[in-house]
Amino acid sequence: MKNKDFDFQQALQSIENEIQSMSLGAQPPELYAPIRYLMDLGGKRIRPLLVLLGNYLFSEDWQKNAKPSIAVEIFHNFTLMHDDIMDNAPIRRGKPTVHEKWDRNIALLSGDVMLVRAYQQLDFVEETYFHLVLRKFHQCATEVCEGQQFDMNFEKRNLVSEGEYLNMIRLKTAVLLGFSLEFGAIIGGASAENAKMLYDFGVNIGIGFQLKDDLLDVYSDQAKFGKQVGGDIIANKKTFLLINALARAQGETQKELLNWLGKETFDATQKVEAVMKIYDVLDIQQVTKKKMNEYFEKAFGLLGGLEIDKDKKKTLIAFTNDLMNREK
Amino acid sequence: MKNKDFDFQQALQSIENEIQSMSLGAQPPELYAPIRYLMDLGGKRIRPLLVLLGNYLFSEDWQKNAKPSIAVEIFHNFTLMHDDIMDNAPIRRGKPTVHEKWDRNIALLSGDVMLVRAYQQLDFVEETYFHLVLRKFHQCATEVCEGQQFDMNFEKRNLVSEGEYLNMIRLKTAVLLGFSLEFGAIIGGASAENAKMLYDFGVNIGIGFQLKDDLLDVYSDQAKFGKQVGGDIIANKKTFLLINALARAQGETQKELLNWLGKETFDATQKVEAVMKIYDVLDIQQVTKKKMNEYFEKAFGLLGGLEIDKDKKKTLIAFTNDLMNREK
Repeated sequence: MKNKDFDFQQALQSIENEIQSMSLGAQPPELYAPIRYLMDLGGKRIRPLLVLLGNYLFSEDWQKNAKPSIAVEIFHNFTLMHDDIMDNAPIRRGKPTVHEKWDRNIALLSGDVMLVRAYQQLDFVEETYFHLVLRKFHQCATEVCEGQQFDMNFEKRNLVSEGEYLNMIRLKTAVLLGFSLEFGAIIGGASAENAKMLYDFGVNIGIGFQLKDDLLDVYSDQAKFGKQVGGDIIANKKTFLLINALARAQGETQKELLNWLGKETFDATQKVEAVMKIYDVLDIQQVTKKKMNEYFEKAFGLLGGLEIDKDKKKTLIAFTNDLMNREK
Repeated sequence: MKNKDFDFQQALQSIENEIQSMSLGAQPPELYAPIRYLMDLGGKRIRPLLVLLGNYLFSEDWQKNAKPSIAVEIFHNFTLMHDDIMDNAPIRRGKPTVHEKWDRNIALLSGDVMLVRAYQQLDFVEETYFHLVLRKFHQCATEVCEGQQFDMNFEKRNLVSEGEYLNMIRLKTAVLLGFSLEFGAIIGGASAENAKMLYDFGVNIGIGFQLKDDLLDVYSDQAKFGKQVGGDIIANKKTFLLINALARAQGETQKELLNWLGKETFDATQKVEAVMKIYDVLDIQQVTKKKMNEYFEKAFGLLGGLEIDKDKKKTLIAFTNDLMNREK
């Protein structure tokens, strides 16, 4: 039964093959070349891997489902193409973003076609499960857009509550991870209860991941992390850390924090060091770790109710831990 | 059987009711208010009317299908929201465009949700026809984007051939009219052949309509047309008329046409009059009318093969003539 076990490398390879061979129109090239470009920039393909993993938990034939699984990767890349326009981001995965390499109109329209293309990829779902998967995909896609809008709104506000932030990251990033697992489970024939449990597992893991990302931006080995440590601090990005620091700081500490946030010119290293000292005073690293672990524990707690083989549960846990322990 | 005949006013009313009562999320408001705003700006609701008309030709129960029919209206308005960003258009139906009233990022993201919402509306299609309709919708949505990209490309080019232009308007505007009729036919239980024939009818009518629009911009009663006569001429818009004039003009006429096209400052009325004189010399109005009539004749010629009741065919013809004879 070797070929029925979940083989991470085999899964990844079949996902890459599907991405390489996915059909795209040819004309006009301005519409299709950016899709190929962005999909070829790589990434860890976590979402389709989650589809196949969720599928493996309930089906002997997870290898058959690489084709529908890449719908979530196409969708994810669509959100990147449009988010990069909205954020004026010049670089994505070390290369020029689509709107930089081509232009904003092309990135907009090419992204639109990509969303249609993601839907189209769901045509490969077996007819029995097709409509159910589609309904859940509508919901997920809508929520991802809601999360992005909340994120943009928060950047313009002075104060954002912890609850608002957690809801935003749930929508913007976590629900797609939950949907990916649930999608795999559904097309593997899982019961509605099991599929929902896996969705909730994915959402909680996803929120935990985002909190981990917030932590890693400040507390990580720069070489491993692959981008400037403290980038979020330099940009006053409203992460879980900053939101909590703003909520907790009082007196002189508050004054100093607001002072650093208000500076238009500053030495980046000095600012990062100063804000990190404030985080230390306020115990922000521990507060964030605690919250992150709450989500991870909640996720793993859900697995008790999941009606699957013990070995399969172990595979799910091992895979998730792998993801959790990566430093990006 | 009165309530089974196609009643235009009743159809329009039920479409408006569905649009008014369609469910939309509430939070964040920046995402949903623009959708409501744009849908409420009105319009003739031609596309959902075509769905119901196509449905009536094959079904006794066309009144039941107002709900799925508005998917094409939501999709059409999504394209307007994004096209207006790309075209930098300040006004839509006499009111500020979404990106003017809110901002470009909101119009982008709200449009994305609208595309998902259009797909979601197709959930109201009966299960038997659901997947077929969806597959055809992917194709149509993709082609509409291709048409918009060709249109943007053409604006940057000096020469566009008649064939390229006709293909562009087929994609950008005609296929959605064809799909609307076909959609209605499919959910009315039409055979694949009849549905396809109705699609082709709609596409040919749609190309004819666009040529009529090109004509009306120059040769129409300004009061009826509701916008400045000659707007396309003033803006050097590459319509069927201009493309043909550029292809036909020679010697002095060509020199004069290129001269007007190259002027950065000019008196608008003078330019419109001068270019119209060139169009007269080159017989552009007749050439365009001839091409338009070719498409209308081709469309009506297809109806011979359509296996439907004679009275229903008459209704289809009457409705189409109504649309053809409107001056916008």
